[in-house]
Amino acid sequence: MILRNAWYVAAWSSEVQPEKLLSRTLLNVPVVLWRDTSGAVNAFEDRCCHRGAPLSSGRLEGDNLRCMYHGLLFDTSGRCVEIPGQDRIPPQAKVSTFPIVEKHKWIWIWMGDAELADVSKIPDTHWLDDPQWRSLEGYTYYTTSYLFIADNLLDLAHLPYVHPSTLGGDEAYAACVPQVQKLENGVRVTRWGEGINPAPFVQKIKNYPGKVDRWNIYDFLLPSIFLMDSGMQPVGNGAKEGNRVDAAEFRSTQALTPETENSTHYFFSQPHNFAIEDPKVTEAIHQEVVKAFQEDSDIIHAQDRMLKLAPDFKMISIGADAALSYFRWLVSNAYKAEQAAKNPVKVQEV
Amino acid sequence: MILRNAWYVAAWSSEVQPEKLLSRTLLNVPVVLWRDTSGAVNAFEDRCCHRGAPLSSGRLEGDNLRCMYHGLLFDTSGRCVEIPGQDRIPPQAKVSTFPIVEKHKWIWIWMGDAELADVSKIPDTHWLDDPQWRSLEGYTYYTTSYLFIADNLLDLAHLPYVHPSTLGGDEAYAACVPQVQKLENGVRVTRWGEGINPAPFVQKIKNYPGKVDRWNIYDFLLPSIFLMDSGMQPVGNGAKEGNRVDAAEFRSTQALTPETENSTHYFFSQPHNFAIEDPKVTEAIHQEVVKAFQEDSDIIHAQDRMLKLAPDFKMISIGADAALSYFRWLVSNAYKAEQAAKNPVKVQEV
Amino acid sequence: MILRNAWYVAAWSSEVQPEKLLSRTLLNVPVVLWRDTSGAVNAFEDRCCHRGAPLSSGRLEGDNLRCMYHGLLFDTSGRCVEIPGQDRIPPQAKVSTFPIVEKHKWIWIWMGDAELADVSKIPDTHWLDDPQWRSLEGYTYYTTSYLFIADNLLDLAHLPYVHPSTLGGDEAYAACVPQVQKLENGVRVTRWGEGINPAPFVQKIKNYPGKVDRWNIYDFLLPSIFLMDSGMQPVGNGAKEGNRVDAAEFRSTQALTPETENSTHYFFSQPHNFAIEDPKVTEAIHQEVVKAFQEDSDIIHAQDRMLKLAPDFKMISIGADAALSYFRWLVSNAYKAEQAAKNPVKVQEV
Repeated sequence: MILRNAWYVAAWSSEVQPEKLLSRTLLNVPVVLWRDTSGAVNAFEDRCCHRGAPLSSGRLEGDNLRCMYHGLLFDTSGRCVEIPGQDRIPPQAKVSTFPIVEKHKWIWIWMGDAELADVSKIPDTHWLDDPQWRSLEGYTYYTTSYLFIADNLLDLAHLPYVHPSTLGGDEAYAACVPQVQKLENGVRVTRWGEGINPAPFVQKIKNYPGKVDRWNIYDFLLPSIFLMDSGMQPVGNGAKEGNRVDAAEFRSTQALTPETENSTHYFFSQPHNFAIEDPKVTEAIHQEVVKAFQEDSDIIHAQDRMLKLAPDFKMISIGADAALSYFRWLVSNAYKAEQAAKNPVKVQEV
Repeated sequence: MILRNAWYVAAWSSEVQPEKLLSRTLLNVPVVLWRDTSGAVNAFEDRCCHRGAPLSSGRLEGDNLRCMYHGLLFDTSGRCVEIPGQDRIPPQAKVSTFPIVEKHKWIWIWMGDAELADVSKIPDTHWLDDPQWRSLEGYTYYTTSYLFIADNLLDLAHLPYVHPSTLGGDEAYAACVPQVQKLENGVRVTRWGEGINPAPFVQKIKNYPGKVDRWNIYDFLLPSIFLMDSGMQPVGNGAKEGNRVDAAEFRSTQALTPETENSTHYFFSQPHNFAIEDPKVTEAIHQEVVKAFQEDSDIIHAQDRMLKLAPDFKMISIGADAALSYFRWLVSNAYKAEQAAKNPVKVQEV
Repeated sequence: MILRNAWYVAAWSSEVQPEKLLSRTLLNVPVVLWRDTSGAVNAFEDRCCHRGAPLSSGRLEGDNLRCMYHGLLFDTSGRCVEIPGQDRIPPQAKVSTFPIVEKHKWIWIWMGDAELADVSKIPDTHWLDDPQWRSLEGYTYYTTSYLFIADNLLDLAHLPYVHPSTLGGDEAYAACVPQVQKLENGVRVTRWGEGINPAPFVQKIKNYPGKVDRWNIYDFLLPSIFLMDSGMQPVGNGAKEGNRVDAAEFRSTQALTPETENSTHYFFSQPHNFAIEDPKVTEAIHQEVVKAFQEDSDIIHAQDRMLKLAPDFKMISIGADAALSYFRWLVSNAYKAEQAAKNPVKVQEV
């Protein structure tokens, strides 16, 4: 169940280098990403319109891209401008292109109906390149549906069980009931743990002498973008009222992009606003997150294997599923609306 | 065609260690096996009832098992007894459990209708731990249906061709016509070869100076259990009349448990009652059987590959197929009966 | 779309050695090839008629082949002549055999209706063992339909793009429009490039001081046989009129044999008639072709991956597709005719 009329992250900016061709399948479509001489990123369907050979095996010639099977040449609009041995270029000789926006180190792509591509709908992720924040670029890959990863992110009760020595720590945090707020295009989750043990990945840097107040406040937005204000600080300093004192604050920024129904590109970053002058701190935080995301990957891939053996398995809902249930309902509704728009029901005339 | 209302071997006893979780798929269902503090073996469906994560990735807490995704805790009855962040436990929050019997080093499991699980139907395999017999524990794995392995065991004419240097030897043994007796729940096969060459795997130990009388007398029982009295002794000592003189006797004990329609767990052992004080003899016999079972595996997997290329292939029956044809008929009948019981035909009222 | 009533290359002669069994799947059928004591090649379906075990795991006994599962013995006609433990051999106990012709180092097989197997339809490939020509034996394997390889061979505009440093060279050659002549059972393509740069693989041997005239004149015949007169010589010596002066001439001889709908055996050779006394030249030419065929393999497998992601992809035709479009039409017609002959439409009586 993949939504098409939505902005997805296609790549980190740094992945698309001048004079290189990046091939990546997104939403079941192979795409080739490349920069033209102006530095702008272009996205073509990675199939020559002639015989389907990948254009990512092709050759960049200035602002044109040549297929290296039979030599057809395409300009940045996707139009074929040269066919060896033939003067007339048929007008249908062109490859599909996709709208692209590059912003805050991420390359966003729109693969649905181009007329609906509204740039103002791209969520704000300015922490990725804001000078007050520091982070490194993360990427991992799943051979599961993006929906299982979304489920995981929508119920942080898993933190102490899946991540006991990294992001988790105190099992009391699992029992703290989050507040779930329904948004039109997603869900806002607010989880507070007051007077609990700090998370190991923070403790390695901050070494708090006692208990902390901890928060995870995030929006999970359609199609599958995760934006979180999280952190912890010594207990009793009014964290909940907004007084951040000796806090370890983060703006976790994550994007899931389906490769296919059963595989997912996962872009992530963990910006922090303390000790920003020390690259070792940034590196240490990033490596803890990488380790934790491997823990998620292990349990989610295991879950996926178990469920694939039992297509009829009925899950039992618990209270902690409120956010994920609502989000799955949003996805399902949006998907049905897209399908209905593609195949309008013929109203029978009376 | 997998029967569900039957006892299957799930594991060797030694495979289920205290404080460990053994994950194994049986009859298409992932199962986790574990011992509680009393030493009793428990078998749960290896899928948390919440989101399907494997309980085999969980944590044993005394006689309870905790799912390490979102922290649900289950007691030995499979009932959920704790959900982090929630007081009320919904009654449907439980995982499936399966009847288990541990006997003579084997752990038997019943995965069909639990009300039909009759412990008295577990076949006798006491040779596996009888002090008069010695053997080692064998296991191998097939990526074929268990039925092809059953076929193999039901026609020992294959011995000299598949196992010329291990279990086979004299091609004359293939021409000895076995007696086939139909049982209600299986088939009994009796094959005698009188005055033939001894089998190589026995000859390595006994070094018989001349010809032997050889016998293979076995029951192959539903769902797929093989119990054999076999052996050989110098010719002319009245073996057929029951006089066992300088005999090499075995009680081969084998169990096939389908993992899926196309893969099989194969538990086996070759108890012998001579030279039982010498572990080297036991080891030598076991290694010859392991070698021979690899020979079977090679031909059966090759057969499977050939047949998968030709779903419509029609086999030609020969006389030696009597036992396997009858057994396949038994399986097919039992399978149809199970299906009919699951989906009773509605009798139309007149 | 695989034609059955056609001669295919099953193997190089050298692959079928006396007293050896060669197993190879052709047109979805596993086949075992072997020489009897007269040296003649026999081809059996590689499945024992009894239980489907591969006869290629069997044992040659003079002019008979024994299945080493249960010991059935077959003569060169495929008839079963011995069943251990049984006197009467049922007449249906036989394996399928296929007509074989061995000629010019190639073993041709006919896997369709044996009554239609007309030996005179085997194309002439005498260059493979003509003393005036030298070549080595090539084989490669594709995990794509043979039709994509046929497409490649039917449009040599790909030479400069796919093979810039081997068979290709001058991009001007892609723009030379070939003459396409429709044959009843294939297509003849004639491509001339006059006054262009020599191909790198030839230049390594001939080191021509200037421009050359280059030609590729070939028949591509049903089911998928490629026979080409190709070469180049210094420009201005009347090559087109048949005057071959200091020419590098080749008779590329290639055969595609479907293993399955999605995999292909590819037999090839590049006979040359110059420097035939120097094995190093023959070896050098062969290695350049091997390298070039790897380039083809890379682009064709990539194309196949792209197309498998989009079953509904519509290709755009260009002028250079004339030969491949006609050949695909021939295959499609022949295939429909075969299907119609297998399933004759019942004419409704009036």
